Amino acid sequence: MGQIEKKLAGRGIVLPEVIVLPGRNRTSAVQIGNILYVSGHGSALLKDEKVKRIGRVGEDVTQTEAYEAAKTVAIQMLGTIRHHIGDLDRVKKVVKITGMINAAPDFEHHNKVLDGASDFFYEIFGPDIGQHARSSLGVSGLVSRQSVEIEGIFHIEQIE
Amino acid sequence: MGQIEKKLAGRGIVLPEVIVLPGRNRTSAVQIGNILYVSGHGSALLKDEKVKRIGRVGEDVTQTEAYEAAKTVAIQMLGTIRHHIGDLDRVKKVVKITGMINAAPDFEHHNKVLDGASDFFYEIFGPDIGQHARSSLGVSGLVSRQSVEIEGIFHIEQIE
Amino acid sequence: MGQIEKKLAGRGIVLPEVIVLPGRNRTSAVQIGNILYVSGHGSALLKDEKVKRIGRVGEDVTQTEAYEAAKTVAIQMLGTIRHHIGDLDRVKKVVKITGMINAAPDFEHHNKVLDGASDFFYEIFGPDIGQHARSSLGVSGLVSRQSVEIEGIFHIEQIE
Repeated sequence: MGQIEKKLAGRGIVLPEVIVLPGRNRTSAVQIGNILYVSGHGSALLKDEKVKRIGRVGEDVTQTEAYEAAKTVAIQMLGTIRHHIGDLDRVKKVVKITGMINAAPDFEHHNKVLDGASDFFYEIFGPDIGQHARSSLGVSGLVSRQSVEIEGIFHIEQIE
Repeated sequence: MGQIEKKLAGRGIVLPEVIVLPGRNRTSAVQIGNILYVSGHGSALLKDEKVKRIGRVGEDVTQTEAYEAAKTVAIQMLGTIRHHIGDLDRVKKVVKITGMINAAPDFEHHNKVLDGASDFFYEIFGPDIGQHARSSLGVSGLVSRQSVEIEGIFHIEQIE
Repeated sequence: MGQIEKKLAGRGIVLPEVIVLPGRNRTSAVQIGNILYVSGHGSALLKDEKVKRIGRVGEDVTQTEAYEAAKTVAIQMLGTIRHHIGDLDRVKKVVKITGMINAAPDFEHHNKVLDGASDFFYEIFGPDIGQHARSSLGVSGLVSRQSVEIEGIFHIEQIE
């Protein structure tokens, strides 16, 4: 078991099963060289039944609930990354994440929702690997009315 | 004529003229190393008069119409890519696309609209090259009230 | 002083202080190889008090005001880039920018708002380096109700 998986286990975090996509036209991540492009992962597909995942932030879902959803989406992304690269210790940098927040028009704290993912990546990978560039934005809607969708770019150690 | 152009011709698909941008400050795609970054291509600029291109999905435009718009945008993107790299057989991977869907706030199927592009890329390039990462999101508005805008990242075979 | 800094000085443009992020989980840009990924920079954090920065374009803020905000965000991005790479002459290409415009649902000119940034990059870097791929979209909301947020990808000369 690698260092990152040990950290996850020490916090009681079990990486979920990889999400099976509904169609074969796409995949959950594509690696070119040492860069892994991870598809938008949405809260609607989360397996953790305790996490609120549907509805507009600031209307149906609170900022705190959406923070939890973003964290759980980040855990799901790690499951996808492990599926594609095998060993999470090969993640050399969380490069950039984009947080699409299905929020009410007057909501002002998209950044604090996305912190659910950013704090998690920082905690698990530490400052050197975990600190990342990011953008957060309010979207007018998402698939299945999910509250949060996050995509990411990750730097992966290449196997020679 | 390359293999991809033969496939397109066999389906009666003619790549449109490259869209002439309104200003010189930007361009339709930029290649750095083996990665081609393709600008957002919007349905408002489509040349195919049979395709509905303007209005909000779920209000002015149906999901099926928007699927067709997304497919036609993908064809337009191929025209741009050919313009930049010369031969579409040099596309080694459709890496990632982002579908910005100008949809009603209660629309829930942004992914099914973007399938218009994803299905097309998969059909033309096959699974090894055509399967891609992607994100789809609902936007509150787009240039000229267009229904769909898609941007992409493509892996291009480098000429030594 | 490098060529780009001279150009900026000649126009009376002073690069602002780097924005200090509220949390340590993220950073304003990450470089992998010769690509610098710049976080979304929003108009709410601008230091130039003459620039309108808050509110929805087409409602609270005019298109012209938002153009100015986009330009000022681009200046702020250059400050971030200089902070990360030291010398702006090392920018070899403005690769791609994404403009998230907090606009009214019936606003149709997101591209003309983003021109504030695109025109600036083109003017400062010239056609070879300054012409870039881009996307512009309308978002339903942004952090602190800011009018404009821009992220970018830049090609940086690598130091051997």
